Amino acid sequence: MTDELHDVRALAFDIFGTVVDWRSSIIREGQALGQRLGLEADWPALADAWRAGYRPAMAEVAAGGRPWATIDVLHRQILDDLLPRFGLESLSEGERDQFNRAWHRLSAWPDSVAGLARLRSAFVTTTLSNGNVALLVNLNRGADLRFDCVLSAELVGRFKPDLEVYRTAARWLGLAPSQVMLVAAHPRDLAAAQQAGLKTAYIPRPDEHGPGGWMEAPGTTRFDLVAPDLIGLADQLGIA
Amino acid sequence: MTDELHDVRALAFDIFGTVVDWRSSIIREGQALGQRLGLEADWPALADAWRAGYRPAMAEVAAGGRPWATIDVLHRQILDDLLPRFGLESLSEGERDQFNRAWHRLSAWPDSVAGLARLRSAFVTTTLSNGNVALLVNLNRGADLRFDCVLSAELVGRFKPDLEVYRTAARWLGLAPSQVMLVAAHPRDLAAAQQAGLKTAYIPRPDEHGPGGWMEAPGTTRFDLVAPDLIGLADQLGIA
Repeated sequence: MTDELHDVRALAFDIFGTVVDWRSSIIREGQALGQRLGLEADWPALADAWRAGYRPAMAEVAAGGRPWATIDVLHRQILDDLLPRFGLESLSEGERDQFNRAWHRLSAWPDSVAGLARLRSAFVTTTLSNGNVALLVNLNRGADLRFDCVLSAELVGRFKPDLEVYRTAARWLGLAPSQVMLVAAHPRDLAAAQQAGLKTAYIPRPDEHGPGGWMEAPGTTRFDLVAPDLIGLADQLGIA
Repeated sequence: MTDELHDVRALAFDIFGTVVDWRSSIIREGQALGQRLGLEADWPALADAWRAGYRPAMAEVAAGGRPWATIDVLHRQILDDLLPRFGLESLSEGERDQFNRAWHRLSAWPDSVAGLARLRSAFVTTTLSNGNVALLVNLNRGADLRFDCVLSAELVGRFKPDLEVYRTAARWLGLAPSQVMLVAAHPRDLAAAQQAGLKTAYIPRPDEHGPGGWMEAPGTTRFDLVAPDLIGLADQLGIA
């Protein structure tokens, strides 16, 4: 651990892709839904398209093109738009609602529970996700993820990578931005956190979009730490 | 458990007095400080006066007489005002800051850790405190209190018993107010929660202000549950 990381007191975690494996979870829930209803569909393609709709939907809110909406609301609208393309327009309101809440039931990456426990023994830990509070609470309960705090874009009323989200999180934790480290699988998120004065730990998750799938380009930002997973991060931070 | 409580999905906990024993903790920290510095003072009286300054300070913020301030800031101003009366005006800036943070290190009531664990097995649990986020995070870590979520007046920008605090907490949890139950030792807090549509569980803590000390009058509000402590609450809610 380099000298300038000695001031870090809290770790703020991106969630989708960094701590949980949304893609496998959504595919699994889709397959189960298909079996229950006797429907066939390309569930991996649906999962990818659903997730692909997420950034543009948030960007529209950020640009003021529509009022604030939670990720639950955005996920549902993206789903409704996608269903006809996948031959699933017959899904009832209740089935759509239930499928939409699959985002509250995502599975953790294999290292997440143990890695978080080690990291929490030495640092304050918090979520810092664009997911809404209820989604994060349900996710943490379902996957047995323990954080000291649940911070969400919803509480700020802006989505990452708006710098205000990172700065407000540090203020709520009673810390200077430089005492907080964002842990994330996405260079764009980390670059914004760095611009807001936070430290950064990059955890590439090459399987986030499936084996051999797309990965966000690392870009030119230099991160404070790069680790293969949360256990590797605990190792690099010198936590026993 | 009565029928109308079957919809409750989340328990929101008041913290000071309900989950933690602020008075013994502050007295203990004061005594340790006195021993370290060779100072004598009436620590129980200081603890009581410090706490007594809390509601008027919040009321001034609520009335718009001063801009938003965290409980950390209010606690510090009350302390500075009190020190001369207790012969402690010689405390340095660092000692005052350190003593003020005693509110981040309060001890739990003996039933709290076990009671919360049982309650969390059946309900979403969250803090709903006028304490600021950093205070709550430090308190929970220090006393090993596990909640699914840390909600604070600070996140709303208003103090309880402003009804907006209770309503906003329910919205963030993705629930109707009637699906959330406030658990508190203070009838005034509970009455406001009830007015906001929440269910209420009253946990009298007769020792909050010391053995034989002052207790807030129960008033005329009828609460949904009354239990002697958090373990008794788990019993009444039928949690194994």
